[in-house]
Amino acid sequence: MAEQTPSVETVRELSRRYSNWGRWGDDDERGTLNHVTPERVARAAACIRSGTRISLSLPMDATGPQVSGGFGGRFNPIHLMFRDGGDISMGTVVDEFYSGRDRHLRGTDDLVIMALQSSTQWDALAHIFFDGHMYNGLSPDTVTSKGARRGAISQATDQMAGRGVLLDIAHVKGVDALEPGYAITADDLEAAEQAHGVTVGAGDFVMVRTGMMGERKGNWGDYAGGPAPGLGLGSVPWVAGRDIAGLAVDTWGMEVLPNETPDVFQPLHCVFIVGMGLWIGEIFDLEELAAHCREDGQYDFFFCAPPLPFTRAVGSPVNPMAIK
Amino acid sequence: MAEQTPSVETVRELSRRYSNWGRWGDDDERGTLNHVTPERVARAAACIRSGTRISLSLPMDATGPQVSGGFGGRFNPIHLMFRDGGDISMGTVVDEFYSGRDRHLRGTDDLVIMALQSSTQWDALAHIFFDGHMYNGLSPDTVTSKGARRGAISQATDQMAGRGVLLDIAHVKGVDALEPGYAITADDLEAAEQAHGVTVGAGDFVMVRTGMMGERKGNWGDYAGGPAPGLGLGSVPWVAGRDIAGLAVDTWGMEVLPNETPDVFQPLHCVFIVGMGLWIGEIFDLEELAAHCREDGQYDFFFCAPPLPFTRAVGSPVNPMAIK
Amino acid sequence: MAEQTPSVETVRELSRRYSNWGRWGDDDERGTLNHVTPERVARAAACIRSGTRISLSLPMDATGPQVSGGFGGRFNPIHLMFRDGGDISMGTVVDEFYSGRDRHLRGTDDLVIMALQSSTQWDALAHIFFDGHMYNGLSPDTVTSKGARRGAISQATDQMAGRGVLLDIAHVKGVDALEPGYAITADDLEAAEQAHGVTVGAGDFVMVRTGMMGERKGNWGDYAGGPAPGLGLGSVPWVAGRDIAGLAVDTWGMEVLPNETPDVFQPLHCVFIVGMGLWIGEIFDLEELAAHCREDGQYDFFFCAPPLPFTRAVGSPVNPMAIK
Amino acid sequence: MAEQTPSVETVRELSRRYSNWGRWGDDDERGTLNHVTPERVARAAACIRSGTRISLSLPMDATGPQVSGGFGGRFNPIHLMFRDGGDISMGTVVDEFYSGRDRHLRGTDDLVIMALQSSTQWDALAHIFFDGHMYNGLSPDTVTSKGARRGAISQATDQMAGRGVLLDIAHVKGVDALEPGYAITADDLEAAEQAHGVTVGAGDFVMVRTGMMGERKGNWGDYAGGPAPGLGLGSVPWVAGRDIAGLAVDTWGMEVLPNETPDVFQPLHCVFIVGMGLWIGEIFDLEELAAHCREDGQYDFFFCAPPLPFTRAVGSPVNPMAIK
Repeated sequence: MAEQTPSVETVRELSRRYSNWGRWGDDDERGTLNHVTPERVARAAACIRSGTRISLSLPMDATGPQVSGGFGGRFNPIHLMFRDGGDISMGTVVDEFYSGRDRHLRGTDDLVIMALQSSTQWDALAHIFFDGHMYNGLSPDTVTSKGARRGAISQATDQMAGRGVLLDIAHVKGVDALEPGYAITADDLEAAEQAHGVTVGAGDFVMVRTGMMGERKGNWGDYAGGPAPGLGLGSVPWVAGRDIAGLAVDTWGMEVLPNETPDVFQPLHCVFIVGMGLWIGEIFDLEELAAHCREDGQYDFFFCAPPLPFTRAVGSPVNPMAIK
Repeated sequence: MAEQTPSVETVRELSRRYSNWGRWGDDDERGTLNHVTPERVARAAACIRSGTRISLSLPMDATGPQVSGGFGGRFNPIHLMFRDGGDISMGTVVDEFYSGRDRHLRGTDDLVIMALQSSTQWDALAHIFFDGHMYNGLSPDTVTSKGARRGAISQATDQMAGRGVLLDIAHVKGVDALEPGYAITADDLEAAEQAHGVTVGAGDFVMVRTGMMGERKGNWGDYAGGPAPGLGLGSVPWVAGRDIAGLAVDTWGMEVLPNETPDVFQPLHCVFIVGMGLWIGEIFDLEELAAHCREDGQYDFFFCAPPLPFTRAVGSPVNPMAIK
Repeated sequence: MAEQTPSVETVRELSRRYSNWGRWGDDDERGTLNHVTPERVARAAACIRSGTRISLSLPMDATGPQVSGGFGGRFNPIHLMFRDGGDISMGTVVDEFYSGRDRHLRGTDDLVIMALQSSTQWDALAHIFFDGHMYNGLSPDTVTSKGARRGAISQATDQMAGRGVLLDIAHVKGVDALEPGYAITADDLEAAEQAHGVTVGAGDFVMVRTGMMGERKGNWGDYAGGPAPGLGLGSVPWVAGRDIAGLAVDTWGMEVLPNETPDVFQPLHCVFIVGMGLWIGEIFDLEELAAHCREDGQYDFFFCAPPLPFTRAVGSPVNPMAIK
Repeated sequence: MAEQTPSVETVRELSRRYSNWGRWGDDDERGTLNHVTPERVARAAACIRSGTRISLSLPMDATGPQVSGGFGGRFNPIHLMFRDGGDISMGTVVDEFYSGRDRHLRGTDDLVIMALQSSTQWDALAHIFFDGHMYNGLSPDTVTSKGARRGAISQATDQMAGRGVLLDIAHVKGVDALEPGYAITADDLEAAEQAHGVTVGAGDFVMVRTGMMGERKGNWGDYAGGPAPGLGLGSVPWVAGRDIAGLAVDTWGMEVLPNETPDVFQPLHCVFIVGMGLWIGEIFDLEELAAHCREDGQYDFFFCAPPLPFTRAVGSPVNPMAIK
């Protein structure tokens, strides 16, 4: 990665070197979630001490980070009511919803139209392809207009619980937020471990805080797709070497933007998701968690972040919980 | 409740007797989640022993329990793709999604249109009104076409974790599933505690299994709104007396159908949600959990079931996790 | 078509024989709408005599012909309110929608989620492929996840007006409705012309009534995709020979079901749409028009049926107007 | 209207003076469409001379005038594919959509999510309330969460055809577009009639061109809700006096913005829709029509603009056709 500008060849080399294809069988669709063994989950329970519960999710609504005409057609969640207090107040609900028979109870009801990756979210392994393949060598016909036949979000339905670790890179570096374009390295990650007195181990879910969420929440600007700090190519050996289960960041795209590879967009999506089968979380709100960890000095926690099990989906919104 | 047919007066009496209005302040919007103290969450960690993770959610897709023209306009989730493997395979994705500049990575992306209470789900306290009020005396103008200004699902964003207990009523009674119309009583609930060797305590999330999900999954018939077993009026003293945080059932509507009150639809929704501020879960899939509990004899577990924090929503789909 | 069972070879032969590929240029995306010259539109004005206006559309709502789990994921229109009278009645609309400033006016507003071919509708030429091609030889990469780059519904945006002719086959045969499985022939179409005293000419929009809509409206059963009367292979020479602009039928699929070709689904979609570039309308409600034509004996009319110009769509709902 | 600033009292006075409540019966829900008699429709046919067909609709897609976080939650149409060429190309369509049985035909299919008033559109009479009532004295409980029980768009299903007249105010005034804030008067409308050599009569559909669409199309800025030219209070006597059937403008809101009444938003919506029952069209694209009329000097035409008959909707997108 050193002297010359990294390119698609760099990405290919990293993908090959750190590939997990076949590691858990040729049919594996679960990737790094294989690291989350029952023993590790059981051990993670010890992280629960005070019983503090912290959500890592944004509120999901029209004020989210997506912009009109944004990336790939994504939009902020559209929340609508089937029935509401107006129907109750006007006395119309009985005829309109209860077939004219008043049985005293009144209800309200609602729905949502939601781009699955518009807010705090998990990527499924079928979300990314590189050089014609997704994780474990599957071809594009895996994902049709009816969704992902393999590597879908449902692979994680009962998997997203275990030990979580926060690495607050911004705080360790003494800034509110890393600068857009800053590429987090293996050294940065190790320095955070040391500063926090925590060691990331196999099967852990690692939350990396850049501070960008704290700066931009509610005043998004180009948060969704614009320049951002994030993981860089130099982080790959660390990420791959620790056998982590998942990696979540407080930015739109997890990795540094602009990317270090002028010819490849989101090269770490290729290396991590396609090559390693690593589960990536994005748009996580780590502000409250970071404040709490600074307060009590405990940077690991029980982590439970179950995706909604949308059949054949390539992503899912999630309300991740950190429990300490 | 005894000799004569219960009626709206019965419901009013129960709502009054077991009311929690004002218990946690006149402004409280959180109801029984107030029972979930940090200490109780911390103690619940001890339920994690083997590290087994079990999801209590249905797959969310078009094969769900909703039917065409169903209750209140609800429908099964509609999952659609923004981008898929076809675009990758045909080579159209670069022009269509990446502005004509090929940067090697390929992605897929999707969205969902979802009635928030169409599958495994939490009710928010603003979901139900009785005699002109929702929990804590709020009036119908609390819920407008823009959703619930108070008592919304976001009250539970960081709350849904603690000790869970399964009460497998069907199993204790020696049947695959309780009959539609069977009203679960306080005695049934206590008998299950004894049979399971478990005691429900303050701040617990109680899962009540009727077995109906096991019978109907994938072959729903009138599961959504038809006759069903469920909690009966006779269960109220037990439910109220234990100071539980939440109650989830494997049926569409939590309570017995047809209801015991000919003149009131879903009377326990009135007593529990409006009167007590109790958080209700419905369409929970308790089959795998029940099998596991029968196997190891442990009927309590760490429970983490975070709703998606849709702003001002009156319900949310959820993928509840039981961790043992 | 005669002795032996027709097959894909029959369909190929008909598609070739009646092909319009190249007829209006290699780049043509408009097909038979090229027949609608200004002169023909001007002449069609003479069909307007009494000033009677008749809609040929179903009401578009949840009571439409689609069924749960129906063909290709289609569903009936879902209509929802952004703002309604409840907000006005409760006095919440000012804060909720008008930023707290009461300026006297009150509004209501709504949206729809609609499968474009779920009700009365036009097919775009990009809707159908046969043997790897759509009309005029275009390949499947013409239609990506972002819709049809060519042959989309917008080709008809300003085209759908001219002379309309009703051929009431059911009435001419003296039945309320043709039987499911009945294949309308060229002879049937000519017999209707004679019985009605009307001659179909170049550039006309032909409405073919089977009577099935009258029988099934509101009691749909398997209307959407089940056995139905409709155009048969024997109608092709007449349809192709008259140089008509469009063909609309009161059934779900325009052509007879089960199809005459055991190995090809909807063979006339292949011959008409792919081969000829013919614009097809389906689920037209011809009942009121037919009654009016029987009354006054005039079977031609001014026809105006503009699709909504959804960019890159492969179909559009339409409210077709017959004006006599 | 003269010396002092108009106010809500002005609006009340105009609404009363030009009220059509009761004019066509106490149960009337159709308002000024009652002016469109068959005789007038028949006479309008004479406007069809050359057979020119012109669409007055915008393309309906994500590039429309709505902005993120825009008025009342409206958004641009979201167009999505159920099936596309990718499925055909990859060979997945047979298994995914045709139950594994290849029957040679291949199809594509799509859907839309659309705010009904996000693009070229008709307002239904139930769209607006003033002083607690909609047209003909109906109260807010007419419009529930299930839509408008009376005065819905379906009142116009078979009505929107007759004589159209273009009044090109911008052209008559010798400008590309009227300035935002310019309030069109009765004199302006009469001057346009004289300049064009056309007389607006009873039952006509009047298109008023400000030129704003020509300036802003594709570069919308604050087109949706910002300052705009449009009808002013001074136009009311003319509009009411001519007994027109409908009035459509090339702006977002038909009337001048900022409004002349500091205390009333969109006062002409109150006078026209609530008081008169006048059908209003907005976001009409009159550019091509205006160019054609300038060319041939004929400012009247046959007008056919059928709304989609969404049951109980308070508006509908429309592709209006002018045929000359």
